[in-house]
Amino acid sequence: MMRIKILGTGKYLPGCIVTAEDLDCKLNLPKGWVAKKSGILQRHHAKSETASQMGACAAHEALTAANLVGEDIDCIIGASGTMEQAIPCNAVLIKEAMGLQATSIPVFDINATCLSFLIAFDTAACLISAGRYRRILIVSSDIASHALDWDHKESCILFGDGAAAVVVGAGEGKSGILTSRFETYSRGAHLAEVKGGGTAIHPREYSEETKKDFLFRMDGERLFRMSLEYAPTFMQFLMKDANTSFDEIDLVIPHQASLNGLRLLQRHLSIPNHKFLVRIQEYGNTMAASIPMMLDDAIRSHKINRGERIMLIGTAAGFSIGGMIIDF
Amino acid sequence: MMRIKILGTGKYLPGCIVTAEDLDCKLNLPKGWVAKKSGILQRHHAKSETASQMGACAAHEALTAANLVGEDIDCIIGASGTMEQAIPCNAVLIKEAMGLQATSIPVFDINATCLSFLIAFDTAACLISAGRYRRILIVSSDIASHALDWDHKESCILFGDGAAAVVVGAGEGKSGILTSRFETYSRGAHLAEVKGGGTAIHPREYSEETKKDFLFRMDGERLFRMSLEYAPTFMQFLMKDANTSFDEIDLVIPHQASLNGLRLLQRHLSIPNHKFLVRIQEYGNTMAASIPMMLDDAIRSHKINRGERIMLIGTAAGFSIGGMIIDF
Repeated sequence: MMRIKILGTGKYLPGCIVTAEDLDCKLNLPKGWVAKKSGILQRHHAKSETASQMGACAAHEALTAANLVGEDIDCIIGASGTMEQAIPCNAVLIKEAMGLQATSIPVFDINATCLSFLIAFDTAACLISAGRYRRILIVSSDIASHALDWDHKESCILFGDGAAAVVVGAGEGKSGILTSRFETYSRGAHLAEVKGGGTAIHPREYSEETKKDFLFRMDGERLFRMSLEYAPTFMQFLMKDANTSFDEIDLVIPHQASLNGLRLLQRHLSIPNHKFLVRIQEYGNTMAASIPMMLDDAIRSHKINRGERIMLIGTAAGFSIGGMIIDF
Repeated sequence: MMRIKILGTGKYLPGCIVTAEDLDCKLNLPKGWVAKKSGILQRHHAKSETASQMGACAAHEALTAANLVGEDIDCIIGASGTMEQAIPCNAVLIKEAMGLQATSIPVFDINATCLSFLIAFDTAACLISAGRYRRILIVSSDIASHALDWDHKESCILFGDGAAAVVVGAGEGKSGILTSRFETYSRGAHLAEVKGGGTAIHPREYSEETKKDFLFRMDGERLFRMSLEYAPTFMQFLMKDANTSFDEIDLVIPHQASLNGLRLLQRHLSIPNHKFLVRIQEYGNTMAASIPMMLDDAIRSHKINRGERIMLIGTAAGFSIGGMIIDF
């Protein structure tokens, strides 16, 4: 057990709400198609906000919840699946947007696409456990909507934008991480990608012919099959490592990738509704921000209380699968 | 002292060498201008290699040096200042290029621009120290040359491309980290940047008018002044934290940002030439790959031997400054 405590959480949703009906209209589809196909009734899209502004709002909320101020933090980790600028890293821009210019707090990013938050949380726990830092602020802020391919109906209707932040400190009482587990299978490396924008295809290559290279493309069917292939064994190891059972877990917080995937996972694990958090209907898939947004919701609505046990679980481009079991 | 050991290192340089004279010609400058202005006689530019291919070559060399194979590694950290694709993260593509598709080794990226390697090395040490992993492969592979602004002579002549990899494991004997220190001052957030390519300015905005937004821009003069402002106090704290003196340090390996900066740092620290590694003349500034490339050179040329003490030090877009003192 790694003694670590979630001291506070926060969330930010962009002002612009896009409903399923809005998308039916935008995509020239019959009324009701988007809601029926995706189960997602609305999502927020960043129109006027930058990712760092969104992240800073969530971070301030997390600090307030923790009864701390920015200066109490030893390290800021940006944990998003999207970059705001190619250089510098997201955390630099988030720190700037938080108004912490006068401090020397070190910052860096961790990127594992939709698993960025889980990896950052686990890493922050190890940094604190090893004595490197006392309190770490993790900020996930993703704007997926700017790189959606509106010709690819199956994927563009799934994503929303959002941000969440979590302050982590040394454990007190029984708070801590029972286990963490991450696996990557690179044979799925190209099943979810944005090929362009980096050193492989520079933005100068952008044209009518290449424009799809700069948009998100996924093979949902094959990703789904890889999840089905690896999830059962993964879950067995996770539970065994933590020496716990589903009876002892008070809440499962899954990455909100797709409603079909969530329902299948829930059935596979035989988890009742009240123990399995699903809010994709309101948010869509908000990438790395998805899990910490759910965590914030669960804490604020008292779905999870101090001393209770949570499972955090998700998949990401990679193909990666990750999970943690923590005592809140 | 955090017990940690560098088990092996590797390096890769792209095949295409660009000399100072080549750049004089390309930039329509008098012969000798580039060499005189930058002190950099040659750099390698990736023409046919991708960053992941470069990283995989360096990684294989590091594994060989460590007498290990890929399957012996528990985690792969991509630690570059540039992204190859917007999605997935670099480490997924490096793992794929290494031919490790059949393994479940988890991967993720750490990004702190030119300090990515140092932050990743420190983080890897904490992950191992906390018992999360036993052996971690860190790969830095940067292609700066694709985003250079050839109209901005002062910056475009400084950069080269390259990759390096380091395998880190639990410490034996006296190997370990005496101290690590990182600071970020976000008032320098925009002194070195590539504004475009992410969610702030999507590649679809690329045009003749906006093209400079997708290229590297830096205010070398102000970055230099920030280094001068923060480095002296930073160094004092670093030495004090490690409870060591420059007499006890066998080799200083600085990030190779610019020859002027390196010479000034060396004078400030009063370090003799044989204790201060400078190879920017051959490589240019290879971003995050710079420090591990130097480390590989130093180990292979026996400039550093087991039991000796090294200082790793650098600056990055942020503005960030970082340093570590380790017993090799």
